[in-house]
Formats: sequence, C-alpha cells, structure tokens
Amino acid sequence: MSLGEKKMGLGEKKMGLGEKKMSLGEKKMSLGKKKLVSGGGIIPDPKPPRGTQDILPPESYKFRKMMDIAVNVFQSFGYKEVFTPAFENLGLLSTKSGEDVKNEIYHFKDKSGRELGLRFDMTIPVARVVAGNPNMRLPIKFCYIAPQWRYERPQAGRFREHWQFGVELIGVNSAVADAEILSVVNALLRGFGIKKAKILVNSRELIEKVLEKMEISGDKNGVFRAIDKIDKIDVEGVREELKKQKLSEKQSTDLLKFIEKKGDPLKKATALLGTDSQELKNIVQIIDNAKKLGVDAKLDLSKIRGLDYYTGFVFETVVEGFENFGSVCSGGRYDELMGIVGKRDLPATGMGFGPSRLMEVMKEMNLPFGENTATQIFVASAGSDVTEKVSEIAFELRKFGLNVESELIGRKLSKQFEYCDSEGIPWVLIVGSRDFAEGKVTLREMGSGKEELLNLTNLKAVVEKINGGESNA
Amino acid sequence: MSLGEKKMGLGEKKMGLGEKKMSLGEKKMSLGKKKLVSGGGIIPDPKPPRGTQDILPPESYKFRKMMDIAVNVFQSFGYKEVFTPAFENLGLLSTKSGEDVKNEIYHFKDKSGRELGLRFDMTIPVARVVAGNPNMRLPIKFCYIAPQWRYERPQAGRFREHWQFGVELIGVNSAVADAEILSVVNALLRGFGIKKAKILVNSRELIEKVLEKMEISGDKNGVFRAIDKIDKIDVEGVREELKKQKLSEKQSTDLLKFIEKKGDPLKKATALLGTDSQELKNIVQIIDNAKKLGVDAKLDLSKIRGLDYYTGFVFETVVEGFENFGSVCSGGRYDELMGIVGKRDLPATGMGFGPSRLMEVMKEMNLPFGENTATQIFVASAGSDVTEKVSEIAFELRKFGLNVESELIGRKLSKQFEYCDSEGIPWVLIVGSRDFAEGKVTLREMGSGKEELLNLTNLKAVVEKINGGESNA
Repeated sequence: MSLGEKKMGLGEKKMGLGEKKMSLGEKKMSLGKKKLVSGGGIIPDPKPPRGTQDILPPESYKFRKMMDIAVNVFQSFGYKEVFTPAFENLGLLSTKSGEDVKNEIYHFKDKSGRELGLRFDMTIPVARVVAGNPNMRLPIKFCYIAPQWRYERPQAGRFREHWQFGVELIGVNSAVADAEILSVVNALLRGFGIKKAKILVNSRELIEKVLEKMEISGDKNGVFRAIDKIDKIDVEGVREELKKQKLSEKQSTDLLKFIEKKGDPLKKATALLGTDSQELKNIVQIIDNAKKLGVDAKLDLSKIRGLDYYTGFVFETVVEGFENFGSVCSGGRYDELMGIVGKRDLPATGMGFGPSRLMEVMKEMNLPFGENTATQIFVASAGSDVTEKVSEIAFELRKFGLNVESELIGRKLSKQFEYCDSEGIPWVLIVGSRDFAEGKVTLREMGSGKEELLNLTNLKAVVEKINGGESNA
Repeated sequence: MSLGEKKMGLGEKKMGLGEKKMSLGEKKMSLGKKKLVSGGGIIPDPKPPRGTQDILPPESYKFRKMMDIAVNVFQSFGYKEVFTPAFENLGLLSTKSGEDVKNEIYHFKDKSGRELGLRFDMTIPVARVVAGNPNMRLPIKFCYIAPQWRYERPQAGRFREHWQFGVELIGVNSAVADAEILSVVNALLRGFGIKKAKILVNSRELIEKVLEKMEISGDKNGVFRAIDKIDKIDVEGVREELKKQKLSEKQSTDLLKFIEKKGDPLKKATALLGTDSQELKNIVQIIDNAKKLGVDAKLDLSKIRGLDYYTGFVFETVVEGFENFGSVCSGGRYDELMGIVGKRDLPATGMGFGPSRLMEVMKEMNLPFGENTATQIFVASAGSDVTEKVSEIAFELRKFGLNVESELIGRKLSKQFEYCDSEGIPWVLIVGSRDFAEGKVTLREMGSGKEELLNLTNLKAVVEKINGGESNA
C-alpha cells in the first residue's frame, strides 16, 4: 500500500459528491503537468509491454480451467505444488551458463545492490528449493504452474512472458519413475479431452552408444542439437548441421538413416547395438512399464530434445493430425542438474508444457472446453424499481451453489439479452415490476427463447431446471 | 528453451551410463572454473532472494485451496479473471505518482531500451486493460489472483513479492454495486470457514462533509492518512499527526471524538450533519442493501483507508478475536482512477486481500483447511519385486478418481508408514510379495493402525472404504 499512500497525485482535488459531475474538466487541468492525451487518459498506448500479452475473458476462463485440470492430475499422482518468487539471485540463474545469461533474461538490482533476474524456467528454482531443504524426504515430487520470462526479440508465438506447467520427480532413477511421468502426460491429455496423441520416446544414452558405434566423436551435444532440428528444418538442413559438427559424409548418412522414421526403430537399434545393449533394454523397459499404465509410448530415434541437461530418457508429444504444431508436452531424465545447481547429487525426471501452444491446438481441434463463462444464470431487471430485487434474488440463487450474475446498471432488457448471448450465459431470470408485485418471475432459456412464469417462492424449481441441464434442449 | 540450449555448460562432460557412478568427481573438476563450494553445488546460499519467500508443501496445498475457493466465489458473482504480465511499461506505472515510483518498484529496460517495471498493484494493469478495450461492455467485472512486487526494505510480515486476490466492478456507481462487493467479501469469508468477522464500512464523502462542518481545510488526504493510523498508533499519535496537518487543538479533539468508537456512529453523524445529509443517506443505503444480501456491515467512522484514490464508500474487515492482525480484506469506491489512468471516465468499486495475512489468522484460529495433502491413499511396497506392481495398482485406483501416491524407491515399509504419517495420508494399501502372489493386498488405516486383507480383484472395495470417510473412525 505504501506506493499509493505516499505518492498518489489526486490529493489536491476536490472530491465532494456534488462536484463529481464536473470532475473530468478539473482532472484535465490538474494533470496538465503530466503528458496528457486528448480524451482524458494519460496512457499513451494501453497495450501490454511489447512481447507480452494479457489473458482476458473468455480465454482466461479456459486458462483457469486448464490450470484446475492440471492441478487435479498432478495431485492425483501426489505431486505437490511449489510457488517460488518471480526473481532469483542472478548468481543462481547464472549457474548453468555464467554471466552470459544476462543477455537472455530480465535483470535488475535491489536496494542493497544485489543482482536479481526474472526466472526463465522452474527447474533452477526447484533445484534451489531442494538444495535449501536438505531434510526433505526423497523422492521429492514437485509440480508447478508458473509464468516465466525471457528477454528475446518477440517472434510469432514466442512471448517474453509465458506460462509453464510441469512436474519434477527427484531422487529416483528407475524405469518405473520415468513411466510415471508418461502416465502423468497421458492423464493430462485425457483431462484436456485430447484422445489421439502420440507420445514419442527416445534415450540419449542409446543415441550416445549409436554415435560411439559410428565412431562419431566431438561435441555430442552439438550433434544432439542438430538431430533435434529434424522436425523444424529438412533432412538436408540437418546434414549441413552435422557437417558443421565434423561428421563425415558417411557418418551423416548412417546417422540420418538410423534416426529417420522409415523402418522399425526397435529392429534398427537392435541390429546396430545388439540384443544385449543395456541402453536399449532401459528404454524398452520404460515403454513396457508405461504400457501397463495405459500409455501407448512409441520409440522414435529422432527425438532427442534441445536442452543439454537431459541425460537419458526423453520424450515429446504430438497431437494426431496436428503434428505441425510441434510437441505439446515434453520432458525427460536429467540426472546431473540437481547435483550441479544444488548440493545434493540427485537423479531427476520430469515433464512440462506451455499452455498457450496446447490451447492453440485445442482451438484448432474445436476442443475449447465448451463454454466461455462460468455464469449459469443472469438475473435481469425489467423496470428501474427492481434493481435491488435482482441483486437479492441473485443472492438467493447463489445459496444453491449456482454461478449468478445480476443486472447492475439498469440496461434495457434487450441489451441484457444481448449481453447474455454474447457471453454464452444459458439462462435468464427476468424480474419485471408488475410480475414481481404478484410474486412471479420469468425463466428464459436463451438457446430456444422459451419462457416460463414461475413463483418467486419456488426458486428451487429454477435451480432444478438449470442443474437438469435442460439448457441445450 | 533457447536459454538452456545455447549455454548449458554440461556439454563437454561424458555422460554414458557406465560413467554415471563417478560423475560427481568429474563434475567438481569440470566446474572448477566457477565458484564451487564444498559439497558439489554452486549455490552459495540456497534461499529465495531477500524479502521474498517460497510457498512449499504443505502450505502450497492450502494456498491452492484458497485460490480455488476465491475463484469459485468470484465466479459465483460473474467476475471474470484477468492475467496481465508481471511487468508494465514504466510510463504506465508512473501515471499516479510520476518518476518517483522508481524508488519503490523493481524496474529495468528491455532490449529496445524501453523502461519496464514490475507491477505493484492490479488496479493499474486493470485500468490499462479497460483503456485498451474501449468496446468492452459495461459493467466490467474483473477479478484477479496475482503476485505483485514492491521494492522496499524487508519488514516483518511485509514481503517484496506478495499475492493479492481481488475484484473490480467498473462502470457502476450505486449502492447496489457497493453492496455486491460486500457480499463477495462475505462469501469469501464463509468459503474460508471464517464465521465471525466484522465488516466495518465508512464513507469518505461523509468524512469530507464532517471536515467541512468542523471548518478543517487544507490537505484533506493528509487528514485522512492521519485518521487511518488510529488502529496502528495511539490517539495521541494521531493528534500529533493532525497537528502537522494544521488542525487546531479544538478541531483535533472534535474530530477524534467524532471518529472514536464510543457512542452510536449513526447518531453522532446525524447529530453533526443532519438527517438530510446525502452522504449519510448513501452509506446507510449501502449498509441496508448489504443486509438484504446477508451481510452484517457496521458503520465505523474511523475507517478511511490509506489510499488516496478512494472517493466514497470504504471498508475493512477484521476477524473477531483476531483484531490485532488488522484488516484481512478491504476496499472501496474509486470513481476517478479509471478516468485518470485510462481514457474512459468510469466509476469503480472493488475489494482485495492478501492471502498471507489471512492464512496467518486462519492458522491462529486453527482453521488451516483440515488436511496437509491431497493424497488419499499411498500404495506401499513390501518387497523389491513388487515395485512395478504398486505403480500399476496406483494407476488402477486413480481410475476411480482417487489421489494416489505409490512407493517409487523401495524404502522399508516402516519408512513408508513414517512418510504417510508425516504427510497426513489417511490410507495405505500394502502390496507384499507373498500376498500379491495370492491376489491379496492389505488396506491399512493410518489413524487406527487397523488392517484388512482384501482381494486385488476388488479394488472397488478399497475405493468405497476411502470415499466412505472411515478414515477418522
């Protein structure tokens, strides 16, 4: 509050009720010293900062629904939420990449000159929490729903503020743990109503063995990053990238042939690495365990993920028919990061997704969660003498657990209907002066326009109609 | 992802499975260039930045519950959520207080040199959204659940990052609208299980008239801020403050006598302003309308709120028996702010609260929402050969809608029980090697220690027991 208290510039103006009518004119005068644009306001451009976006109704309603579903799924597996501050000490954010991180994040100083930066992921804050709580029992099962920030040039679909939902399972290195992560992904997709998705898994250990077999040495992560581009650029582009990584023509051809979608990946891997390959056994075990949890995960040798911290199992998820949107949910095992960032050397696995891409796909799929509003009924006023009454009837209806809006500004009834139509509010209870005097109100079903006169003493009938789901009749 | 992709420092290390066992030693070497503390990690101090806090389990579970309740209440009145970016253009944040705002907020530049700042309230971002969407229908009913930031010296109970929950009702100036705000407050308190709270209302218009009557001129907001301190400092302190505002001894005495809790406030106000006072009628009307919505609001002439932008009705809420915690929920009418910040001159009213103070009070009241965890049952393993099985049984139980954790690291059974006890998980399903071979599992009620052997084919019996609420037997 101190901000407002100390500096608010309105203090000098007269604010008596009688004077309110002329306040606009006064305001213009008293704000003359500030940059004042015609129209009264002093916002030159009322948009969110470049590269960011507001989430407004009705999208915000769907976004909240998405959060609720995710929290429920996370909780159904025993993942527990963590909320960490938007900013962290810059030293922490630099642990992985050094001072250069400053070029890619928002950073600033606090009053004591401490350098701070807005977080760019949740894995580092989670690692800090784990390091700072050495007595936490293992395994640690954390989940989060959080905005994060990056300081890059705005691009289509890439925002400087973006939300991320995810889970981290820390302290276990096993196929059962990795399979649980895939089970979480499956449950999320089902929760969102996405029935046809492909979960594509791979193993970095396995691909490392492949590189060894092919006598590809050098910067392994450089090769991984080249492979990771296979869905974004064409095969020739990847070949170019591999050349930069000093692979011979033959090595590139062999590797590209190995990872391409043609042929049975399991057979290809077995042929190259032999049936005794532990790396192959590991990933097959994860797929098998996942299958017992109802997850149909497929081996895809081209999936490698771009992040260098993955150490073993990795996966991506594409929605069938909407593959061009890319992965909507991904993750993998990162057994070394916790030890590097924190003080405990702990294996870890996890998954995450950005809700905005998923919402785009769902919109494209016509899966926008059905409705646009939580409001189930609008109590309309027909007559200026019933304004208080509509608010009281709304209050009574809320007691039955309904979500209720009521008319507050006394618009014409047609305007109120227009509002309900545009919002998708299915029911309207019309309170007219004359009917009300006789203890009656009219229930209108917006879809059909059907109206029914009801007794005010029997609001329960209204509730039953609404809960009966007759709104689509 | 670009951050991780480009700079991750792990790239050079060997990560083959076989080498993983010795990776800690290697890590120490390869990280030698960075500040490395003994123990392996490179976080010098794994605490959140000074003045901020993490919300970790089990508090995070209660925090999420609080959010859910608030969202449900807000939706039950038709308020719609807005999510705005954490930062805004500095020009916007300075509209109320000018460049000085920089001393009290976190600010920084983007790549194009634009000055940005972390938001310190949600009222200004909401005003920006309203200004930027001139076609939005009135009234606008927004709600938010959002962190905000202020750049001040840390104090007990005052954090540099703090969450705020609230609603804004924009475009209506009426007693019905203000009463709806009080109805929201009431519904929230009930939702949180707080039965005995006092909602104390007042009117700035009314107090302005009082100042006029007492011939107190000068900086009205200075006098308001002095009055606002009455619950924080003693009466003599306020008298000192009023002296600074150039009130005479008599004026101070009269004003203090007027606002003090002794005597019936309505009678005192009527005596001073007369029965015809419009200001008095207005606030009485709000109290009356609120009463019809089940809200027991009381006039308290000392409540004035510290923020200069309030123009009329203001209120605070204290929990009975916990008055010393101060107001847990407050707000009021601010009919001029929208016009000043945005381009539309719109009346507005609203409420807000910080969840952390409310949670403190609720803890003190022993109202911590009951449980510590969402998990209803833990599937325990007794025997290393059943690790996969417990995960599969957990999967089956989740199909019935239960929240289920399962043992992932093969601890001793006693350790698993210890974990469930510490978390407050009420039920455990024990999967032992021998029993499992016979198709049996044991359901244990943690509270009583009572155990029962059940058929695996009849998991529904487990679900019924749990949903039957026998856990407290």
